[in-house]
Amino acid sequence: MKRILAINYKAYETAFNEVGVELARASYRLSSKHNNVRIILAVPSIVLEKVSNAYDDVFLQHIDSFGFGAHTGFLPVESLKYSVARGSLINHSEHKLAYRDIEGSISVLKSIGKESIACADTPGEALGLAYLEPDMIAIEPPELIGTGIPVSKAKPEVITESIKAVKSVRDVAVLAGAGITVAEDATKAIELGAKGVLVASAIMKSKDPMIVLNSFVESMDTF
Amino acid sequence: MKRILAINYKAYETAFNEVGVELARASYRLSSKHNNVRIILAVPSIVLEKVSNAYDDVFLQHIDSFGFGAHTGFLPVESLKYSVARGSLINHSEHKLAYRDIEGSISVLKSIGKESIACADTPGEALGLAYLEPDMIAIEPPELIGTGIPVSKAKPEVITESIKAVKSVRDVAVLAGAGITVAEDATKAIELGAKGVLVASAIMKSKDPMIVLNSFVESMDTF
Amino acid sequence: MKRILAINYKAYETAFNEVGVELARASYRLSSKHNNVRIILAVPSIVLEKVSNAYDDVFLQHIDSFGFGAHTGFLPVESLKYSVARGSLINHSEHKLAYRDIEGSISVLKSIGKESIACADTPGEALGLAYLEPDMIAIEPPELIGTGIPVSKAKPEVITESIKAVKSVRDVAVLAGAGITVAEDATKAIELGAKGVLVASAIMKSKDPMIVLNSFVESMDTF
Amino acid sequence: MKRILAINYKAYETAFNEVGVELARASYRLSSKHNNVRIILAVPSIVLEKVSNAYDDVFLQHIDSFGFGAHTGFLPVESLKYSVARGSLINHSEHKLAYRDIEGSISVLKSIGKESIACADTPGEALGLAYLEPDMIAIEPPELIGTGIPVSKAKPEVITESIKAVKSVRDVAVLAGAGITVAEDATKAIELGAKGVLVASAIMKSKDPMIVLNSFVESMDTF
Repeated sequence: MKRILAINYKAYETAFNEVGVELARASYRLSSKHNNVRIILAVPSIVLEKVSNAYDDVFLQHIDSFGFGAHTGFLPVESLKYSVARGSLINHSEHKLAYRDIEGSISVLKSIGKESIACADTPGEALGLAYLEPDMIAIEPPELIGTGIPVSKAKPEVITESIKAVKSVRDVAVLAGAGITVAEDATKAIELGAKGVLVASAIMKSKDPMIVLNSFVESMDTF
Repeated sequence: MKRILAINYKAYETAFNEVGVELARASYRLSSKHNNVRIILAVPSIVLEKVSNAYDDVFLQHIDSFGFGAHTGFLPVESLKYSVARGSLINHSEHKLAYRDIEGSISVLKSIGKESIACADTPGEALGLAYLEPDMIAIEPPELIGTGIPVSKAKPEVITESIKAVKSVRDVAVLAGAGITVAEDATKAIELGAKGVLVASAIMKSKDPMIVLNSFVESMDTF
Repeated sequence: MKRILAINYKAYETAFNEVGVELARASYRLSSKHNNVRIILAVPSIVLEKVSNAYDDVFLQHIDSFGFGAHTGFLPVESLKYSVARGSLINHSEHKLAYRDIEGSISVLKSIGKESIACADTPGEALGLAYLEPDMIAIEPPELIGTGIPVSKAKPEVITESIKAVKSVRDVAVLAGAGITVAEDATKAIELGAKGVLVASAIMKSKDPMIVLNSFVESMDTF
Repeated sequence: MKRILAINYKAYETAFNEVGVELARASYRLSSKHNNVRIILAVPSIVLEKVSNAYDDVFLQHIDSFGFGAHTGFLPVESLKYSVARGSLINHSEHKLAYRDIEGSISVLKSIGKESIACADTPGEALGLAYLEPDMIAIEPPELIGTGIPVSKAKPEVITESIKAVKSVRDVAVLAGAGITVAEDATKAIELGAKGVLVASAIMKSKDPMIVLNSFVESMDTF
């Protein structure tokens, strides 16, 4: 079964400079070697094209749930049909939305053949999101994000309870995130039933992003 | 004196498809012929690179006033130093900000050598913006935006009063916008004291965007 | 089984003037006569005390999910412990919240002995809310709110599907709302399995609010 | 010349409990003794009536800039015509608004005979607000709010520059706030040209709110 390693570039400086592109090149090389691991890069819209030139499994970090029109400075979800983006994160802990906007975005993404990763803080939120049939649900307790304390060790019950809640509605793949720092945190999440992980600072703020990326992919592949 | 024709792509479908790129190519050709008119294209972040390949005087439509960090789905103003964007619209009528965020964004744009066009609904708002020394201030009465009723004819006093308010603080170039539909609306705004215009639907929703663009540039040049 | 008639005063003029107080007096009289109907008045915070002097089953329309502190112009949920309010609407269609804020508010309300009515647009949203154990869930398709087209007739499946979704998690009372105009719309909702209704413009914008209120209570009681 | 002591209750616990009412009683007593000081209490909407029973110069902390209608959980500015509130704070540092909403609120408040205190972070913001002719402008550098470091000592130039900016437009009374802790901070602000001060935690979080209130009023009166 294919594992998912989703890397959220966030708005770290490395998301915009050469590091982000190098990560894309490395993802390209690693993906061809490790068939059991799907690497997804969730990048700021402004670098989407630049990153996509090096690697093609690229998502946006947020899209706006309305249609084309007079919306200066917003990104209508339907505009993705003109884009190389494969899909989008939705409702990330740092960009929370009302349920109706999550619903609208997932629905349009489906209709234009794009994927969605809907994010949840808690099992209850994951339960409601499962009803909307996103392609993936990422569970991330906000209090652990960016702390280096991995959800898979500190709050394994959040992962297992979220998976249980999601599966009670339908079979949506669940990713785990928040505090995932080393490859072992990822394999631990997979042991708990997750399909993969959502990682950010562990790679984007690392001194050696390529080495960390490499270790995640290798561990998740041989797992 | 150089006139400004700023085109706000907004989030119209043409902003994302081939029309947006054709407008960039046309802007490149027209700019070399008409030295008295500066054409600025304000585009969605996701097409910035694509449009910039054809024409280099390109702005964003919005940027977020904070620094690099854990801000999933936002675009920190300082990230523009890694971007080909020449600057950004700020505080557009469809994307209003608190004053402190306008202040922060203009200040960072200056520090990284980028330009700003701060938008105002009214003379009073323009007055406060002038204090921040943006490169340009665009005055657009929101009730006329997208109506086809040009501000330069329907509410000339908003333009003249805004210019007066701005000049009482310092000498910032003022653009006029809202309902600007034909080239004559632009030249009328210039007669009233504006440095140029901010146009959107007249071009982006036109059946012949290149013809409309052409007529604006020619009229503003020969004026 | 006791039926619920929840009246959302919204921010109609009648919410603030003498009508709102008369409705409270009428609710007091009707409640003592009709033991099978619980009337809840959801009022603006500014009239809470005035309305509560006439009738004591009064809710707020919104509360903010944070604690006491430097939050000028906001209403911390825990402040309700000093208030006569019995509880609060949360996440109304006109005041949508992120899931985490709904979660925080319901949790604090419980801890201080106050009730919550969490609002949902759709069955999926109701499902996620049920996980949080609010005292009641009100389902209101936003496209019918204020139209006079009753959800119980136009979209009965939204009511039944929501009830099914909620009951799959736990036994929370479901109210139906949106377009409820005459007493028959309410009894129809009850026939579909709802515990009661959430009504606004039918009463607040009526020429004879007391007569409409009376007809709702009588129909729901004899049902 | 009458001095202004405006006390922002914020959402501290004391705003909602007996302390808030005692402060109102004390303000009543002090006001009759000290004719040169006007005490304004800016309170949460939910306690407006309770506080107003003890003292009548009471403001709200925020109002919403739209009219009566279907706005669940919001407080339309025009609803104040049915309220004992004398006016409202607008655009406080903890509740920032777009300029258009400030403009709309001040305009409606004027039309219904209520007062406004518009808040500014910086001289530039104060300049734009002056154009709208609020009754008072309160300047508060946000970085000092709640710190105990008084603006009148740490950043006197923010006060003087704001007064200068405001007076360049029209003669609006300027209050100074942020970090005002002891009576001397208030008199220092008045020496710098302020009409009075906006105080919050110094009183609301004090162990002896009545004593602090008393010392402010006495100092400002004898000044």
